[in-house]
Amino acid sequence: MIRFGIIGAGRIGKVHAKTITEHPDAEVIAVSDPFGTAAEDLAGPLAAKAYKEAEQIFADPDVDAVVIGSPTPLHVDHIIAAAKAGKAALCEKPIAMSSDEETRLREGLEGIDAKVMLGFNRRFDPSFKQMHDLVEAGEIGPVEQLTIISRDPAAPPKDYIAVSGGIFKDMTIHDFDTARYFLGPIVSVQATGQNLDPDLADTGDFDAAVIILKNAAGAVATIVNSRHCATGYDQRLEAFGPKGMLFADNVRATTVRLSKDHYSDSAGPYLDFFLERYADAYAIELSTFIEALRDGTEISPSIDDAFAALKVAEAAEKSARGGGETIIL
Amino acid sequence: MIRFGIIGAGRIGKVHAKTITEHPDAEVIAVSDPFGTAAEDLAGPLAAKAYKEAEQIFADPDVDAVVIGSPTPLHVDHIIAAAKAGKAALCEKPIAMSSDEETRLREGLEGIDAKVMLGFNRRFDPSFKQMHDLVEAGEIGPVEQLTIISRDPAAPPKDYIAVSGGIFKDMTIHDFDTARYFLGPIVSVQATGQNLDPDLADTGDFDAAVIILKNAAGAVATIVNSRHCATGYDQRLEAFGPKGMLFADNVRATTVRLSKDHYSDSAGPYLDFFLERYADAYAIELSTFIEALRDGTEISPSIDDAFAALKVAEAAEKSARGGGETIIL
Amino acid sequence: MIRFGIIGAGRIGKVHAKTITEHPDAEVIAVSDPFGTAAEDLAGPLAAKAYKEAEQIFADPDVDAVVIGSPTPLHVDHIIAAAKAGKAALCEKPIAMSSDEETRLREGLEGIDAKVMLGFNRRFDPSFKQMHDLVEAGEIGPVEQLTIISRDPAAPPKDYIAVSGGIFKDMTIHDFDTARYFLGPIVSVQATGQNLDPDLADTGDFDAAVIILKNAAGAVATIVNSRHCATGYDQRLEAFGPKGMLFADNVRATTVRLSKDHYSDSAGPYLDFFLERYADAYAIELSTFIEALRDGTEISPSIDDAFAALKVAEAAEKSARGGGETIIL
Amino acid sequence: MIRFGIIGAGRIGKVHAKTITEHPDAEVIAVSDPFGTAAEDLAGPLAAKAYKEAEQIFADPDVDAVVIGSPTPLHVDHIIAAAKAGKAALCEKPIAMSSDEETRLREGLEGIDAKVMLGFNRRFDPSFKQMHDLVEAGEIGPVEQLTIISRDPAAPPKDYIAVSGGIFKDMTIHDFDTARYFLGPIVSVQATGQNLDPDLADTGDFDAAVIILKNAAGAVATIVNSRHCATGYDQRLEAFGPKGMLFADNVRATTVRLSKDHYSDSAGPYLDFFLERYADAYAIELSTFIEALRDGTEISPSIDDAFAALKVAEAAEKSARGGGETIIL
Repeated sequence: MIRFGIIGAGRIGKVHAKTITEHPDAEVIAVSDPFGTAAEDLAGPLAAKAYKEAEQIFADPDVDAVVIGSPTPLHVDHIIAAAKAGKAALCEKPIAMSSDEETRLREGLEGIDAKVMLGFNRRFDPSFKQMHDLVEAGEIGPVEQLTIISRDPAAPPKDYIAVSGGIFKDMTIHDFDTARYFLGPIVSVQATGQNLDPDLADTGDFDAAVIILKNAAGAVATIVNSRHCATGYDQRLEAFGPKGMLFADNVRATTVRLSKDHYSDSAGPYLDFFLERYADAYAIELSTFIEALRDGTEISPSIDDAFAALKVAEAAEKSARGGGETIIL
Repeated sequence: MIRFGIIGAGRIGKVHAKTITEHPDAEVIAVSDPFGTAAEDLAGPLAAKAYKEAEQIFADPDVDAVVIGSPTPLHVDHIIAAAKAGKAALCEKPIAMSSDEETRLREGLEGIDAKVMLGFNRRFDPSFKQMHDLVEAGEIGPVEQLTIISRDPAAPPKDYIAVSGGIFKDMTIHDFDTARYFLGPIVSVQATGQNLDPDLADTGDFDAAVIILKNAAGAVATIVNSRHCATGYDQRLEAFGPKGMLFADNVRATTVRLSKDHYSDSAGPYLDFFLERYADAYAIELSTFIEALRDGTEISPSIDDAFAALKVAEAAEKSARGGGETIIL
Repeated sequence: MIRFGIIGAGRIGKVHAKTITEHPDAEVIAVSDPFGTAAEDLAGPLAAKAYKEAEQIFADPDVDAVVIGSPTPLHVDHIIAAAKAGKAALCEKPIAMSSDEETRLREGLEGIDAKVMLGFNRRFDPSFKQMHDLVEAGEIGPVEQLTIISRDPAAPPKDYIAVSGGIFKDMTIHDFDTARYFLGPIVSVQATGQNLDPDLADTGDFDAAVIILKNAAGAVATIVNSRHCATGYDQRLEAFGPKGMLFADNVRATTVRLSKDHYSDSAGPYLDFFLERYADAYAIELSTFIEALRDGTEISPSIDDAFAALKVAEAAEKSARGGGETIIL
Repeated sequence: MIRFGIIGAGRIGKVHAKTITEHPDAEVIAVSDPFGTAAEDLAGPLAAKAYKEAEQIFADPDVDAVVIGSPTPLHVDHIIAAAKAGKAALCEKPIAMSSDEETRLREGLEGIDAKVMLGFNRRFDPSFKQMHDLVEAGEIGPVEQLTIISRDPAAPPKDYIAVSGGIFKDMTIHDFDTARYFLGPIVSVQATGQNLDPDLADTGDFDAAVIILKNAAGAVATIVNSRHCATGYDQRLEAFGPKGMLFADNVRATTVRLSKDHYSDSAGPYLDFFLERYADAYAIELSTFIEALRDGTEISPSIDDAFAALKVAEAAEKSARGGGETIIL
């Protein structure tokens, strides 16, 4: 039984708390959150301890592993603190606001056999995972063109956007990891940002974007992002190779289709957002983390993956701000 | 160049006239219809002769072949007359109002090498044909269960129903032929009629039905019929065997799919009715007829097929009227 | 917290044990099974008591409710015993081998406020449930034709078939309940049995069947059954009404589609069998049972539903054996 | 009846000849081609005149309109010659090898009321046209992101590539027009070329590409191209707006789907190439041209559209060669 402490009782902290509770070999024994009664509210029904400070989690000898769901600027500190306290860590994305933090993190972890997994949950989505397996099995030959459609159902609040680090680090970071998952290291980035939603015009951030990534072999990943999508959380993936093509469609709540006098075969909307769409992925992510801890096997996605994706995000921002020139990584 | 005479300038006569006009090796040179200006209206734009009487078609030495689109009670007479005049005939379904007519037809054709094809157009639908080819190729093993969904978009006028011979001879006859096309001779029939549309309550005919057919090997065809379907002309076919399943879906005008805030992947309605849905099938039917005439090969579907389907229709009527007992053919 | 005793540690007992374990307000505290170490094997990991006899479950004062997963001939006895012991019961289908048992059950329950739910799990399948809700909301108008495709992936062992009561009571019983769920009381039944699998020829049971049911309003349900299906557990439902049509497709493990040089858009096979396909349905069934117990609301599907479906099964058997005549209920 | 002369009896000339022959108000009366017996081979079965030189077509007083299917470097000369001869022209894409030709063409047409339509056939594809109509009707709001997947089944011969003007002018030009059709004038272009096929490595041309276009309102079109696709001619279009999304899928020969033991719902490959996929589009393009000539209405797509698309192609080439920087139009 792995005893977890949850750092940050926000939306993502709750996702992980639920997943841990449902796992037969894991339990939540502590939750920390500095704001109001957030820690109590989450910890209470789980019969877990509620703390104000993350430090109390690190100091708690009963805690085996932590989920780092704190604000991004604290991730590096929390990873280091967890490692120093001998606790494994599952850290949410992005790993930091800037790749400049990498040196500090590496130094902080020096000499410690840190067990750190990054929360790139989509690698564990059963459909994306099956596509990856089929690609690895050579079903379509080497991937030549990967197309990622990734749209959120609705933009987050403006105060969230203000501290998010921008769309590329906050939202596209998942797609950058997906591209790396299928294509390996990315060597060049071109990005175009869009400002379509007048309500978000004064945030200084893009609310939509298209990004082209290339690996050393010349394979290309194209990412189409938007902060809104009327039909729900639009998450699709297509991999094209010389021998064929793989596609993973959106997920719906049921298989029901309705036909009426002016249309046919109409399905329900896409699942609403990541909590619903990636519920299975979060559970499998947690199981994978627990198995890796138990078996002492390599943890993936790793800190390396986290900084690689972050550097792609920074290159995308630079390209989009500079008018689309290619940034060579 | 095969020179056609069209007997009956109604809806189905027009379908065939159009198909013949578009065929490179065929032309319409005469049209007969006793009602009003129907013959002139169809013949005029085609620069064809307009006759009042079918007999004028049979007497016209320029006519090589006829399309018999006259009322069903005249089909047998017209087939015999065409044969005696040395003209090939493509006759619409059903071949007669009663299988009692078979003897009369056989006698009328005695000693004549009649070239007669029955208008079971669905055998020539590219999707159904491909399914048949795949079944023949053993793709799913021997068919065990065939499911035919066949619904018209809207009921015909009540005066049409009054002389139609009833739903089984008028509408289901196509499905009986499809069942025979896939399963061969039918040995037993069970049918249930439905009266759902209050507007048709006084026609004495069923407006919907479900029929179960069986062949000698024990394979079953299930037919679901309705005289109305809000979404258009519902024409689907599924063949199930020990090794797999084949399905032919409805056809739509385009591949466009619309997603909005409360639904996704909505397609257009089905093609409206047989003119649209089976446009290709009618053209291929005609080509097949012309090729068989040219090459002197066997004509199929044949008069045998026509009476076999008609007997199944009569058995279905008897079963539905008698309360569903199985009628052994 | 509802404390459950599981009667019968076979396949279906295990399904319910898993579902109960995952429910926040339920736990398994006892398991009974007379065979070998079956009870211990299931009870052990759950820290539940293992009994040889169902009577020990009924006598256990800690047990609030039982799941009756014993062989069908024992269902009536176990329902009565549970009721007399003041325990609620979730009983598997069919409720008995014969509807003759109804009187005995009614007498056994006389004067007792028995809480009994029947395990017609498919009513709780999210897709079928949504279809039912949309029908109730009038989306397609009153159902005129219901089409149920229900095929198991592979036939059960012959010794299971020997004691199963026959395909209609054992397998189609679920479809009969689905038909009743959508159409209400069934007034007539026609059935055709098939014997297609030579390996099952000597069981005396059909291995496939097509059944037509009718309600008092003339709506028809058509059921197509087979004991085998190469592609997996084939479970589809279509409801047709004057205003439109609803369809629930099979479920697959992922949304992945593969295209290659000779085909496109190929999906994975259907989920393997009922454990996978109806995992959600079993969980919702249990929640519904628990909520009804907690809130004192009416329990559905009820004993009435169980016998109504059983009578339809008996009528289907009679019709299929008698050569397809309609049996009036 | 519009009497057509076909200039160039190659693949595209044959497509147009077939379409004209099938049109009730058009006929092919002359064909010119300088190579071998190409003109005779096409003209013969149509009972049309066969010429060696295009000039003979322009000089033929019986010719009302020409189809310009000559090599691209001759298009401008042929448009001018047709206009001077008082003949309408339907010219294939691209209009020229370089946008530098525009001045020469404008001068050549000065003072002539030239009737020139450009062969951007995809605007007339029923699915793309319906999408366009639905966008115009406001169904999804203003298009924010257009995604065009456009892959040929196999690369053309290397000697064709050598004179093709490169992938952007030869192949993507259609997609540039589609982008303009939906988004209006394009103001910036970013492109990435790929060289994936070793057989084409020495052509100096890209064999795949991804291009991002932007209009003045900030809407983006993303184009994914490849010279090969194992599954056939991959032609898909998706338009995303604030209120919803429209998608046009590939077209297949039939609706048949096959399910077997390890897969389900497998469709046939995509239609093979443009002759099959856009057969309807070519016919509607011709009808539209004929109607515009007959009614004296504006001809679209126009010479303006042709040069606008060509300039986008040149910008794409420059961006791809320069390493992906944005080219402002």
